[in-house]
Amino acid sequence: MELTPIHHPPHPEEMAGRLSRLQAEMATQGLDWYVSFQPDNIYYLTNFANFVHERPFVLLIPASGIPVFVVPKLEIPHVESRAIGALTLLDYFEFPAPEGGNWFDRVAEVLGQTGRVGVESVCQLQILEAIKGARVRTDIIDDLRMMKTPYEVGRMVRAGQIASAAMADMLATTVPGRSLGEVTAAANRLIYAAMVADNPSINPQATKLTSVFHPAQYSHDPHNFGDLDMRMQEGGPHVGIINAVMDGYGTEIERTFFLGHVPEAARRPYDVMMQARALVFELVKPGVSMSEVDAEVNALFRAAGYGQNLLHRAGHGMGVTAHEAPFLAEGDRRILKAGMSFTVEPGIYFPGVGGFRHSDTILVTDSGNIRLTEGPDSLEAMTL
Amino acid sequence: MELTPIHHPPHPEEMAGRLSRLQAEMATQGLDWYVSFQPDNIYYLTNFANFVHERPFVLLIPASGIPVFVVPKLEIPHVESRAIGALTLLDYFEFPAPEGGNWFDRVAEVLGQTGRVGVESVCQLQILEAIKGARVRTDIIDDLRMMKTPYEVGRMVRAGQIASAAMADMLATTVPGRSLGEVTAAANRLIYAAMVADNPSINPQATKLTSVFHPAQYSHDPHNFGDLDMRMQEGGPHVGIINAVMDGYGTEIERTFFLGHVPEAARRPYDVMMQARALVFELVKPGVSMSEVDAEVNALFRAAGYGQNLLHRAGHGMGVTAHEAPFLAEGDRRILKAGMSFTVEPGIYFPGVGGFRHSDTILVTDSGNIRLTEGPDSLEAMTL
Repeated sequence: MELTPIHHPPHPEEMAGRLSRLQAEMATQGLDWYVSFQPDNIYYLTNFANFVHERPFVLLIPASGIPVFVVPKLEIPHVESRAIGALTLLDYFEFPAPEGGNWFDRVAEVLGQTGRVGVESVCQLQILEAIKGARVRTDIIDDLRMMKTPYEVGRMVRAGQIASAAMADMLATTVPGRSLGEVTAAANRLIYAAMVADNPSINPQATKLTSVFHPAQYSHDPHNFGDLDMRMQEGGPHVGIINAVMDGYGTEIERTFFLGHVPEAARRPYDVMMQARALVFELVKPGVSMSEVDAEVNALFRAAGYGQNLLHRAGHGMGVTAHEAPFLAEGDRRILKAGMSFTVEPGIYFPGVGGFRHSDTILVTDSGNIRLTEGPDSLEAMTL
Repeated sequence: MELTPIHHPPHPEEMAGRLSRLQAEMATQGLDWYVSFQPDNIYYLTNFANFVHERPFVLLIPASGIPVFVVPKLEIPHVESRAIGALTLLDYFEFPAPEGGNWFDRVAEVLGQTGRVGVESVCQLQILEAIKGARVRTDIIDDLRMMKTPYEVGRMVRAGQIASAAMADMLATTVPGRSLGEVTAAANRLIYAAMVADNPSINPQATKLTSVFHPAQYSHDPHNFGDLDMRMQEGGPHVGIINAVMDGYGTEIERTFFLGHVPEAARRPYDVMMQARALVFELVKPGVSMSEVDAEVNALFRAAGYGQNLLHRAGHGMGVTAHEAPFLAEGDRRILKAGMSFTVEPGIYFPGVGGFRHSDTILVTDSGNIRLTEGPDSLEAMTL
């Protein structure tokens, strides 16, 4: 498998390939149109990044031929400056508009009165009501996104390199008293500088950086970033996190680390987490079900007496976002295939002690998996 | 009207008042439940800010009694640390979960098989499918949010003070060559410092700052922030923008300004924009329809020969977001009432010349409107 980093924008052929695979799947499912509203799906097909607000962007993909993109008039030059690949733009003036001039009028006109229309699970009711034909819930674009193209692999390789450098820098600059603000600013500066050196016209709308850490008193509560005055402290466990979408491609690296000494209560959880992590790297290969990977990890944690310390699955997909389907989760019965990408991040959480979780981003290969992010992970290396 | 700034979090009584007004409207509409998924609506009712990802947060509001909040197990301590007011938490372990353990199972169990269930226009198909009773599209929470409580007015007064100071600083530090990065960093630093001085435990998840400017070659394209290397230049028009949600309350101030000299081609558009702006301040009062305000502004621009230079409506609502319903738009037939808040931002756009738009945030009062953001706006004052 080719692992050359890529940082140029996609060529029109890359985008045409995505559209053509989507239309092939639409033919299999007997769909006359597919309606996409979800911004990441629209980005995947157009290279244009929008955010959801009250002026909707709706992408209408016919069974064959060029997609129609319904966009606010205000955004036409913005779309033209970023979109890659064949696209017909259809504008509406404003929301709300006088009768007959609204976005849903344009959508209804294009789709007509009949036919089978595929929609996303996250399709909004107000969009569903503009579709007069038979509506079929099917997440075809999300499904396509699971299999990375060689171009995407190259972009994710590059994102992984940058994230790994940012994590190495975070670990190299740890010191008791270092603040969340300092860590975030330093990491984001490093990441932005690397991205802009690669490509001065990166898209800020397709860039989302989360560069943070949790000291021990918060690390058991992994989605709590509410205390802006968090500071690193002697001891640990701290959990350092780089989760980033860099100009349209996601990556994640996380490390559990200690300053000065490792509290006794942290040694066994760290060791068990490392065993679970090794198990995931060993299990992930084509043909294995995602639920099986998570079930084996959870069984390992339970056997160690840590069943009550689980808060999440073993990993999630990665692609044009840094958090997406499919999932290394007991509830995901899909089968691993070469070309998929995941985080590997089994974790356990102990109020009063802290959280234990490393994360790396991997690519599933024909023979197993390879890491797209890199860094030391032993307890010795993580005691700083 | 009381305009004392407020920066403390809402008291439980404030939250109880919002719930009680919602339940009163549910009774009027004959609803047994209301299902809210939209994060800003959930924030309005709970003070908890989530973002949409694959683990949904769904708020289920009964006709009477305490709402049930279906949340991922991982987020329970996070919700508990931020939510204010009565709330029953119901968790699910992960997404996806093995059969019977998913978020939609929890939602379906709470709602039962029958009854009239109100849903948002933006309700997702996957949530609609978990509702077995009769589904009624009705944006009750969005409607409630239009009328600001005295607490909300106080928060928006404070947000307006901070934004006005940030805009004054942006204008005071303009110089040819000043970069987008410098402007954004300086303004955001000022805003964060003011927020944290008010309240050290502000919620970063409920904070979203857009502090940017457009030089003349971009200012005709008001949603294009794609060039990270934008710099201020001699001449103009530049458009400086502070659009911010500060710890849960939104505000906006924008100014069109010039460095050193005003190009001849910019004088008349600036003057006409100022006439339109004065017209909005004059027209906005209780009893007037929103569409009428926008129609009069558009007529003024067309009479000046600028009908082709319109890209948007005269203003939008403001509240727990910095961009929301209702709208000063020809398509919005609602009637202005005291307690509503809007931006006033009629604008015109000329490729090759630039964009012309000031924005201020106002509150509709019994007798007209008052500004929540303040700053000079004459051409003389804006020539720096």
